[in-house]
Amino acid sequence: MPELRKDPVTGRWVIISTDRQKRPNDFRFDRAATIGRDQCPFCPGRESLTPPEVLSYRQHGGSANRPGWDVRVVPNKFPALQVEGTLDREGEGIFDRMNGIGAHEVIIETPDHGRTLASMSEPEIERVLSAYRDRMLDLKQDRRLRHILIFKNHGAAAGATLEHSHSQLIALPIVPDFVREEIEGARRHFAEKERCVFCDILRQELVDRPRVVAENADIVALAPYAPRFAFETWLLPKRHASRFEHAPRHEYENLARLLKLLLQRVDRALERPAYNLIVHTSPFSEDTSEVYHWHLELMPRLTSVAGFEWGTGFYINPTSPEEAARVLRAVKP
Amino acid sequence: MPELRKDPVTGRWVIISTDRQKRPNDFRFDRAATIGRDQCPFCPGRESLTPPEVLSYRQHGGSANRPGWDVRVVPNKFPALQVEGTLDREGEGIFDRMNGIGAHEVIIETPDHGRTLASMSEPEIERVLSAYRDRMLDLKQDRRLRHILIFKNHGAAAGATLEHSHSQLIALPIVPDFVREEIEGARRHFAEKERCVFCDILRQELVDRPRVVAENADIVALAPYAPRFAFETWLLPKRHASRFEHAPRHEYENLARLLKLLLQRVDRALERPAYNLIVHTSPFSEDTSEVYHWHLELMPRLTSVAGFEWGTGFYINPTSPEEAARVLRAVKP
Repeated sequence: MPELRKDPVTGRWVIISTDRQKRPNDFRFDRAATIGRDQCPFCPGRESLTPPEVLSYRQHGGSANRPGWDVRVVPNKFPALQVEGTLDREGEGIFDRMNGIGAHEVIIETPDHGRTLASMSEPEIERVLSAYRDRMLDLKQDRRLRHILIFKNHGAAAGATLEHSHSQLIALPIVPDFVREEIEGARRHFAEKERCVFCDILRQELVDRPRVVAENADIVALAPYAPRFAFETWLLPKRHASRFEHAPRHEYENLARLLKLLLQRVDRALERPAYNLIVHTSPFSEDTSEVYHWHLELMPRLTSVAGFEWGTGFYINPTSPEEAARVLRAVKP
Repeated sequence: MPELRKDPVTGRWVIISTDRQKRPNDFRFDRAATIGRDQCPFCPGRESLTPPEVLSYRQHGGSANRPGWDVRVVPNKFPALQVEGTLDREGEGIFDRMNGIGAHEVIIETPDHGRTLASMSEPEIERVLSAYRDRMLDLKQDRRLRHILIFKNHGAAAGATLEHSHSQLIALPIVPDFVREEIEGARRHFAEKERCVFCDILRQELVDRPRVVAENADIVALAPYAPRFAFETWLLPKRHASRFEHAPRHEYENLARLLKLLLQRVDRALERPAYNLIVHTSPFSEDTSEVYHWHLELMPRLTSVAGFEWGTGFYINPTSPEEAARVLRAVKP
């Protein structure tokens, strides 16, 4: 059974998930090769290689766990958390723990092994975003859970072990530290000014524009003022709202459009880098409707020499956001 | 001029250091090869390839910037911060910034290109720790500075671009986020219990001992209860003290002894992994003497598939600390 443990100093929760470690005496995890087309469990016709699907979109019908799907969501075969069981929150002296209850799912974004998010059509990307939403709405009903993380690792350097384009979902009984920090920061700003900090950022950025990469009617792509990583880019809805899963249809449409544009520009400017894409949305266990503002964060992985940042969370970024935005704006379509 | 910028949501400071980027149109940083013996600027006889030394220990004499040194400290040739100038703290609307004033130095730990911290003698390791201390005591006198980070990246996978064994020092005019979090957490614990949280951890761990790796008269090597990384290990002084740089001689001796033992066991159990080693000590701009407890954190880099953690600071660890401690305890000398 995986466990959630809390560091007594910082209050940070971590998942200790020893079941994922297949060979107990092999502690080197960096030798996993990326799984390519030949053995891909995400390709149509190989549905039996994954756990049974929890969601699929099938424009042209077809029965569950058979080919014919456009997007398919399945439980992770090597989950970091498990759905069955009780939380059993307990203390061990000074320490706090609970069982690693939660969901760990894979969103298979396309049946086509060769497609990437950047090369999908806008409606196809929108379908992926809808799958994110539908899984969130479903999992929210489980009262043991507090937060849902949706993220995508693209490329081996970003942590993807399967080539076939996919995202992951982790539903947690706690609110992770980095979400907590964002929420607390947004609360402090709101307490002081009665305004959302992200709305304030948007207002200022849309006047001067040195860090705006692109925008459309609903969404702004922005290099943040203090980025941790070179070419880090945020996709923010112009309209204030704390929850990704409640966004109206036209915002998903425009988000899909701007995400495609951004990924294409990143691919062209930076030679198809590996990247992480993370959905930032409100924990569903608390009311953050006034203070928080959902958004996506894209982090191209341009450096492998970030050893220092790895353990400290303190970042040295070699590219200013103004330079990154200028480069991404200048990319010819 | 490098810049320090604060994220308006989380309050996290980052360094934007564009001068380090040598080729303005090449944004891929992952192609830097590790510099080996042939071109090593840290080997004796090549002192002119580094900026002039700020400290050296020379048991057998010899003049500055000439061979004969045992430990040598030089400014980083590609510094993330610069010493000259004024902070010029300023707001840009909602944003906060200051000039990237600070020091960025390299501690060359040994004249011998082939030695590692694990293969040095205990007195040699103690000499490295003394160099850390001496540079801290010197840089603390600069009233513009608030905190000193000392860390070591060992191996290319941990971010080292030079093979020759060395550590780095970054002196900052701000307190980095991860230090702030630790201090705040320790303050909360102290406010509630009138006890240091690290002392409480030690008291509990030294009774049950499932996570104790090794100990001697002054220092305990401990797999923390909620480790972010497989085989993460902390080296804590038994005596409460907030500042590494004020430790008495016998604590450095025993720290050197336990660090050597730990690194040798890690090398043997995990096939000489890359690792990051970080000194956690109090910022010198504030009084944390009752609440904080200095220590070292060792993080072997066993996985390159941590894409998810990279952007989120949320960790999934495949090895329990009890298992890690058991494995490290069982290593035959």
